[in-house]
Amino acid sequence: MAHALRLAERGLYTTHPNPRVGCVIAHGEDIVGTGYHQRAGEPHAEVYALREAGDKARGATAYVTLEPCAHHGRTPPCADALIAAGVSRVVIASEDPFPQVAGRGIGKLRDAGITVETGLMREAARELNIGFFSRIERGRPWVRVKLAMSLDGRTALANGESKWITGETARADVQRWRARSSAILTGSGTVLADNPRLTVRLPGDEAFTPPWRVVLDNRLRTPSDSHVLDGTMPTLVLHNEQYAPVDPRFQAVELAVVAEEGGAMDIRAVMDELARRQISEVHVEAGPSLCGALFAAGLVDELLLYVAPVLLGDSARPLLGLPVLADMASRWKLRTIDRRILGEDLRLQLRPIP
Amino acid sequence: MAHALRLAERGLYTTHPNPRVGCVIAHGEDIVGTGYHQRAGEPHAEVYALREAGDKARGATAYVTLEPCAHHGRTPPCADALIAAGVSRVVIASEDPFPQVAGRGIGKLRDAGITVETGLMREAARELNIGFFSRIERGRPWVRVKLAMSLDGRTALANGESKWITGETARADVQRWRARSSAILTGSGTVLADNPRLTVRLPGDEAFTPPWRVVLDNRLRTPSDSHVLDGTMPTLVLHNEQYAPVDPRFQAVELAVVAEEGGAMDIRAVMDELARRQISEVHVEAGPSLCGALFAAGLVDELLLYVAPVLLGDSARPLLGLPVLADMASRWKLRTIDRRILGEDLRLQLRPIP
Repeated sequence: MAHALRLAERGLYTTHPNPRVGCVIAHGEDIVGTGYHQRAGEPHAEVYALREAGDKARGATAYVTLEPCAHHGRTPPCADALIAAGVSRVVIASEDPFPQVAGRGIGKLRDAGITVETGLMREAARELNIGFFSRIERGRPWVRVKLAMSLDGRTALANGESKWITGETARADVQRWRARSSAILTGSGTVLADNPRLTVRLPGDEAFTPPWRVVLDNRLRTPSDSHVLDGTMPTLVLHNEQYAPVDPRFQAVELAVVAEEGGAMDIRAVMDELARRQISEVHVEAGPSLCGALFAAGLVDELLLYVAPVLLGDSARPLLGLPVLADMASRWKLRTIDRRILGEDLRLQLRPIP
Repeated sequence: MAHALRLAERGLYTTHPNPRVGCVIAHGEDIVGTGYHQRAGEPHAEVYALREAGDKARGATAYVTLEPCAHHGRTPPCADALIAAGVSRVVIASEDPFPQVAGRGIGKLRDAGITVETGLMREAARELNIGFFSRIERGRPWVRVKLAMSLDGRTALANGESKWITGETARADVQRWRARSSAILTGSGTVLADNPRLTVRLPGDEAFTPPWRVVLDNRLRTPSDSHVLDGTMPTLVLHNEQYAPVDPRFQAVELAVVAEEGGAMDIRAVMDELARRQISEVHVEAGPSLCGALFAAGLVDELLLYVAPVLLGDSARPLLGLPVLADMASRWKLRTIDRRILGEDLRLQLRPIP
């Protein structure tokens, strides 16, 4: 299963909106077929593995990181293919939460007399598709907020300058998190201040499905010469219905209306909209107001914090705008998932404790 | 020498104002005597090691972490003792910078026909006595600023509450840094706000020489019921000459006058005063103003930063008050010396890059 998970990981940047899935077919220690899902519309992991195994699939064990599908989607059901190939045992890391699969793949296999076991390395399999599970099970994407700061928790100078706090290695690492996400979310404030490209730059010819650029721009303030309007990536601008896109600057992007709440965009409605559009992992690169609002609303699932060994002082911009705390007991607590050294910088991966 | 350094470390909390020194006497791999300096006024490391070696010191090699003394201080010169014992070779990690020793110990040994080598593990030996070297060579103590903060670089809530951001393991670790320091420095603002004890609490009966508590209190605002005035530890209150200690609240502590500069206490003069009083390592636990002033004056040699996985928001108190930066190029850069996980918290040890 560890092997199957490593295979699945190869689809990290390309399977959107599908989950990353890997499959290994073996007789004992003897591997006869491997495969992983590469891209939506292309064959599933099991199909590749079965093709490679050929006749040797008969009587073999198939290790799959996600429950094989039982429905006709863009490809025929994998459960049927496993049955037809004559595998005798299927080991599944995680059940598929998708309503059209959810146990029906397992049922089909068992009905055909195949031994099915589930739960081997389930947590790792769920982590690999954390956005997919979030979208299907909770109806909203997995929201990962990326922030780069100085030791004293500052993201930019008082004059707005923020290039560059962290070093090259950290910045290259950010590109990988962008690449695995389904959407990169920002606010119009950041667009106006920094005019970011929010593209993905990977070394060599590494393939990726371009994530959506999503700009929260209630009053459609995004200037026409903004990089996010250049049409080089699929881009979605969310705005209030009172503001109509009267000029041609938005011709290269998609627009959608989101409700307001108390004068600001309703960020829960934003997440609903993104989930409807099959966005699984949202990578947020925004300012302290939007990031803080997401935190305060309990919508942040993960914080990806890059810390550079520099000091900027108390006049510099804060990390997060958050409501005033009455006492220390009500501080926001997080669990550290991972710590990593990237050049001179530190990367902390944390998840809020509800 | 590694063994001698480990022995020297045993004196980490007790040798003040003397340096920590270890000594190993050996014939090849065969160790015949070990010793370390425990406390000022008590024998030096070499004396303990020679005592243990007895006749076996003849023809042996002595490994000493610091150049043996050549002058009559509170104890007779160790160079003489090594010569008298008949050792044939002395390996020294670091030369003694102290004017009364500085090469004279080595000279005495060589004059007696002993082979002397220096520089083996010199950096480690200097690190162990970094405050001692700083005081003798630069005429000022080694200043280590300890700060505990949230992920967003905040040390206390807007209402001043700061207990406790970090966990128990991190707080116990702070006690060890206090124990090894010659002085714990704070400002009257912190005394007024938090009324800290600034004592040393070590587990079990671990011995330590109590560091000085040093309070910068220009206008003698320290309230009479402050813990720092309770007389349980040697305490020094530094103030401006215009303010005289008119009431009996300062009877349990020492007072000294320090010059002002621009309405505030001259912190360079503070460091001069502390060096005069044989303070080698200063452990600073103070607020953002004093810590920031030390940084801005280039007087901070080390930053000991505890980071707790919590968020306090932008209304909470900043880490450091520093002058506004004009551009990113002029940010304060630091070098990370050590990173450590303490319970759920992280400890970063950094040194400013000049």
